[in-house]
Order: sequence, then C-alpha cells, then structure tokens
Amino acid sequence: MVEQQRARRPGGRSARVRAAVHQAVTDLVAERGYGSFTVGDVAARAGVADTSVYRRWGTLETLLMDVAITRLTTASPVPDTGSLEQDLRVYAAGVVRDVAGPDGMAALRLVIALATAGEDGVKARDAFLAERGRQLQGMLDRARERGEQPPEVLDILDHLLAPVYVRGLFGVGPLTPAYADTLVDRLLALRREP
Amino acid sequence: MVEQQRARRPGGRSARVRAAVHQAVTDLVAERGYGSFTVGDVAARAGVADTSVYRRWGTLETLLMDVAITRLTTASPVPDTGSLEQDLRVYAAGVVRDVAGPDGMAALRLVIALATAGEDGVKARDAFLAERGRQLQGMLDRARERGEQPPEVLDILDHLLAPVYVRGLFGVGPLTPAYADTLVDRLLALRREP
Repeated sequence: MVEQQRARRPGGRSARVRAAVHQAVTDLVAERGYGSFTVGDVAARAGVADTSVYRRWGTLETLLMDVAITRLTTASPVPDTGSLEQDLRVYAAGVVRDVAGPDGMAALRLVIALATAGEDGVKARDAFLAERGRQLQGMLDRARERGEQPPEVLDILDHLLAPVYVRGLFGVGPLTPAYADTLVDRLLALRREP
Repeated sequence: MVEQQRARRPGGRSARVRAAVHQAVTDLVAERGYGSFTVGDVAARAGVADTSVYRRWGTLETLLMDVAITRLTTASPVPDTGSLEQDLRVYAAGVVRDVAGPDGMAALRLVIALATAGEDGVKARDAFLAERGRQLQGMLDRARERGEQPPEVLDILDHLLAPVYVRGLFGVGPLTPAYADTLVDRLLALRREP
C-alpha cells in the first residue's frame, strides 16, 4: 500500500529507484538473457543497494515478473473501445504483433521458465498471470455491463492467446493481422453455440 | 535408407545400438534434465563409441528429438478408429493425459528450448514437428477418403494442442477428459461455419 502511494508520486525517490531498477533489468536481459544475472548485478547497474531491491521485491523472480507485467501493461494495454468485438480485435492484433516481435517471445519464455524456478518462480508467474487475467476480466465485465455476451477469460486464453503463443514457440504458421481476426471471429462464434 | 533397412531387423546390431542410445538419453534426461549432458555422456552410458552416435545422429539436438518423436509415436500414436470424431476424441484425451503427466511437459519444454539452441536445434525441432504433422495429416486424409470433412492440421494445432499446452505451461485451468471433449466439440464446430 505504502509502495503504491509512493509509486503515484513520479518525482519521489521510491519511483526513481523503481525506474532505475526496471531499466537495469531490461538492459541485463537484453545483454545476457534471463538466468544469467543476480539481484546484486541489478542493484549495481541501477546504482542502488542490494537491500533496496530485496526489501521491495523479495526475490529476483518477483522483480523479473514486475518488470514484465509493467512492460506488458504499458506497451500492450487491454483496450477499452466501447465494443467487445472492437476490444477483442485491437487486443488480438496487439498480441500477434508482440509475439511476432523479439520482446514478446522473451516475456513468454520467462513465464514458461519460471515454472521450473522453484516456489518463488511459480508464485511470481501466478501473480503475473493473475494480474493480466484481472485486466482482461475488466474488459469482459465492461462488455457485460453494456449488455453484450462476452466469452470467459479462459476462452480467451484457450482460443486467442494459446494459438498465437504456440505458433510463436513452434515457429509454425503465419502470425498476421488476418490470422488475429480469424481467431477473434472464432472466439465470438463460441458464444453463439447452444 | 541403409539405416532404415537396418532398423527393420530388430535383432541387428544397428537396432541394438539405437535402443541402447535411446535408453541412455531417457535415463540422462530423468537424472539431470535437458542441457546437462553431452554426446560423450550418452555414448558412455550406452556403451558405444562417440563416433557411433555422431555418425547416426549428427548432433545432440537431432538425437534428443529422435528420442522424443519415437517416444511420442509409441506412447501416443495417432489413432485410427474409422471415424474422425472418435479419432479426435481419442487423440485429445491422450494429449491431455500426456501433458498432465511429467513426461509430456518435458517433451514440450524440449521442443520450446530447441528454438534457442542454434541452427541445429531449430532444424531438429522442425523435423520433429513435421513428422508429427505428417502423422496427423494421415489421420485427416483417412477421414476425407471416407467422405468426412476434417479440419486442417493447423486447426488442430490452434484449437486442440495449443490450449492444452498453454494450460500446462502456465499451470492454469483444469486438464480433464471433459475439457478434452469440449475442445473436440469446438474443433468440429469450426467445420460447420460458413
């Protein structure tokens, strides 16, 4: 709570530390890849004490996921266009664009790798997925309030995110805007089933 | 070609070497995980010369994928029940069962890891996916010959394999026989779209 209040003051020391640490992680991931640096490396690069990092994030895994969710939320916010279909089309196009790019695959690989990074890794991964799930649920709730019949979050995972992710991971099939639209068409058709 | 002819004689030396090397890989994966052993380790464990392994498989990546595709083809063959719907239900149930178990995830993680294992890794991965794709295409071709209207292999990837894989990788949602059946229902419904 205190952290959140601090984060709202963009000029505060807490916000400056957060920005410096996030930038250090982004740089280290680009230079060395995941799994090749420690909390100490991040702190040194950010010019802060190790204890500042441990106090705020607890573990490297939590820090990595904080950076990933911040990046995803900023670079690919869940849309709010006023119509479910348009929201889904904008969202799907963004997911395809992200996964076709190098950063999107890095974030996806991180989420996958965390499953084998012990209890802290699984916790950090689950927090990331829960936060993104909440953002998507908000989009679907807004549609329901407008009287539309949205799919479930799990349907979006199964039939929109999963196909794009697996095509990206396997290097199979095209990842184009037309493909994104096809997936949205199919997702919307699910609602029309008996 | 010569290798294939040799492999058809189950009692031949070539087949014995192949079986010993496959078993060595399976043991080493179980003991150390992927990425923690070399061709030399495999050869030593199998009691054969390093050169025997290099001559037949070329690289460790190719060997790993040969073991994975052999295991998958043996443990989870593509079904041939005489009906598309039944084939898909048996296949989907098997995929869900495999991914819910520890071996299935190991094979999936290997396929994903190979994308970052250089050119040999990508080649081995693509050979694996192409072989499994051919097996699935055979199932769909048999359906078409019977006058049924099967989906495309990519539809199976997008709407049957991808959701199961991503749920497994993310640790999200149930992986049950009922879920497998729902995915098949949706896959078959795709064909009824205009």
